[in-house]
Amino acid sequence: MQNFNYNIPTKIFFGKGQIEQLGSNLKDISKNVLLVYGGGSIKKNGLYDKVVSQLESAGIEWKELSGVEPNPKIESVREGIKICRENGIGAVLAVGGGSTIDCAKIIASGTCYDGDPWEQVVDSNKITKALPVVSVLTLSATGSEMDGFAVISDMEKNEKWGTGNDVTKPVFSILDPEYTYTVSARQTAAGTADIMSHTFENYFNQEKGAYLQARFCEGILKTCIKYAPVAVKTPDNYEARANLMWASSMAINGVCSYGENTAWAVHPMEHELSAFYDITHGVGLAILTPYWMEYVLNEDTVWKFVEYGKNVWNIQDGSDMEIAKKAIDRTKEFFASIGLPSTLSEININNEHFDIMAQKAADCGLKFGFIPLDKNDVKKIFEMAL
Amino acid sequence: MQNFNYNIPTKIFFGKGQIEQLGSNLKDISKNVLLVYGGGSIKKNGLYDKVVSQLESAGIEWKELSGVEPNPKIESVREGIKICRENGIGAVLAVGGGSTIDCAKIIASGTCYDGDPWEQVVDSNKITKALPVVSVLTLSATGSEMDGFAVISDMEKNEKWGTGNDVTKPVFSILDPEYTYTVSARQTAAGTADIMSHTFENYFNQEKGAYLQARFCEGILKTCIKYAPVAVKTPDNYEARANLMWASSMAINGVCSYGENTAWAVHPMEHELSAFYDITHGVGLAILTPYWMEYVLNEDTVWKFVEYGKNVWNIQDGSDMEIAKKAIDRTKEFFASIGLPSTLSEININNEHFDIMAQKAADCGLKFGFIPLDKNDVKKIFEMAL
Repeated sequence: MQNFNYNIPTKIFFGKGQIEQLGSNLKDISKNVLLVYGGGSIKKNGLYDKVVSQLESAGIEWKELSGVEPNPKIESVREGIKICRENGIGAVLAVGGGSTIDCAKIIASGTCYDGDPWEQVVDSNKITKALPVVSVLTLSATGSEMDGFAVISDMEKNEKWGTGNDVTKPVFSILDPEYTYTVSARQTAAGTADIMSHTFENYFNQEKGAYLQARFCEGILKTCIKYAPVAVKTPDNYEARANLMWASSMAINGVCSYGENTAWAVHPMEHELSAFYDITHGVGLAILTPYWMEYVLNEDTVWKFVEYGKNVWNIQDGSDMEIAKKAIDRTKEFFASIGLPSTLSEININNEHFDIMAQKAADCGLKFGFIPLDKNDVKKIFEMAL
Repeated sequence: MQNFNYNIPTKIFFGKGQIEQLGSNLKDISKNVLLVYGGGSIKKNGLYDKVVSQLESAGIEWKELSGVEPNPKIESVREGIKICRENGIGAVLAVGGGSTIDCAKIIASGTCYDGDPWEQVVDSNKITKALPVVSVLTLSATGSEMDGFAVISDMEKNEKWGTGNDVTKPVFSILDPEYTYTVSARQTAAGTADIMSHTFENYFNQEKGAYLQARFCEGILKTCIKYAPVAVKTPDNYEARANLMWASSMAINGVCSYGENTAWAVHPMEHELSAFYDITHGVGLAILTPYWMEYVLNEDTVWKFVEYGKNVWNIQDGSDMEIAKKAIDRTKEFFASIGLPSTLSEININNEHFDIMAQKAADCGLKFGFIPLDKNDVKKIFEMAL
């Protein structure tokens, strides 16, 4: 097990009716906040009114930034910073999914930064101070509610980068699984692919000594496999929504990665798909993951796939290589079973930009991954996924 | 899944050489601390010198309370409080195992309390404020390094109570697995029984919807089963010590219990053994656990034992009741295999005090457990364990 410094300070209010905690806890942080949200679904489902009622009854004043995009753009960040500065805002409250929370984080750090916030997106070391961030989660996927990361895009440059630091970890987040009842089957499936992909990125590493963390990863994967089909078919199944929501936080808050040298592989590749085609992140991950697995499976890595096959899919029979291949097949079948595409062609992506996308992904540290990958490797994986 | 408020603020510096973090992080909390430790083993193994060197180089002044007992006594707490008050101490630094850290926590809370600290031991609601607590861990067992709990004894009254609150959670803890190399085989085994018992207390509950948490529990149990025999045989195996140490923290910090209505059963019973006979806590737990399992196994509870048998012990064949019984047998055999006793007679405990011990244990809320237990039930379990 590698050395690590564990720091997960975010408080979580989890469960039905926990929105009641918002006002009383937020007013201790600031009485003047920026409320950030997305396309307005929170107005349709009544959450916006609940939030406003909490703010009003706690005597909190607020300004709003709405319309944050699914892959949040740097322009929205800049707009939020402007509002914060002009109004002496003391905290940023995100109500939405990972994109909204990500946007809120860089608004919070960018407000405390002299340069343009894109500088903080491409270099997380430039994030040293931030307004306190608070979130109310409406989508189980990115885990942004309990970590410091944010992914921001500049579509003019076709660039999408992950950034973040300890100071952008939310002070507290409210996780009421009922708020995800209205999430569509496709978004539920894509969110699950995101949770599973975070877990795979942590799980597939060469550190054999982080045994406990590997078992935790398997617990998250089994949870997704059990409950995603339930939530896709029965959107208001509380148990399924609750387990997926808690899995989303635990997959990426550090519990599964502390003690390992993890270097993500599929996320950087997918970020290029989203940056060039603005597709749903989880859809891209579901497509790429099985092909990445096939590509990196070899005699040296098979041990990890055997662990995965036995402990997650309960595949007990066969040679190591047979178990590994079956586990990859089961992964692909699972994503298809919850309605996700299996190839890039299905979402109208062709090989036009593969060269530049592969180069950009390779530049994101893929040589440090489970199996080091270069531009040619990435391009081959894209081609396998066509 | 039940509603929960997640709050695990303790930072962890985990791994080799992390003692280097002590001075620089502690001096930001206070420059005048009480150093609490036990019987002096830290002087033999050199840890005391390292701690002193850290304090000196950071310009931190300190007073000492040494000789804290394995089942820490209220008298030590009172002595520590006196030193804190007389010297204007600003933080309590525990260097040792769970007993030392537990003692430090109630010194920290008692210093901020007007009455006698025993009042805080019997009523955790009286703990509302505490000096900051910091720990350097030397034994993988109680998990006290990452939670708010403390168990304190008054041997004059034959009483041992658990208490604690959010304010007694350590601000940070240093976990260097190498400091546990000198822990004896018996203490290593007893510590593992403690970790496993915490996990069992969380795992065996009626909440079927906290699926993810149950899988995390299984991960901890598998970790203990894999690594305790290694650490017992090869005390300086880093991987084994590291996994046991991290398991000890994760077993009881809340990750395994949030979202469930857990009410502990075996711990309250064991506390009576320790209170009357001053035995090692983990030894008592190892003896009682399998008999408690046998006692509560029935047609209504068998589902949970089947989960346990299949997922932890990989017992796939047989009827549900057969799998359950096999799992209990495996548990008993495991504790014996790492050198722990299987009966109370082996540690010279007879039935003399069973009546009063059973009454006291039953008074600790055993009627809210996995299976509600009353005084007669507890007495029968003690008798089975004779």
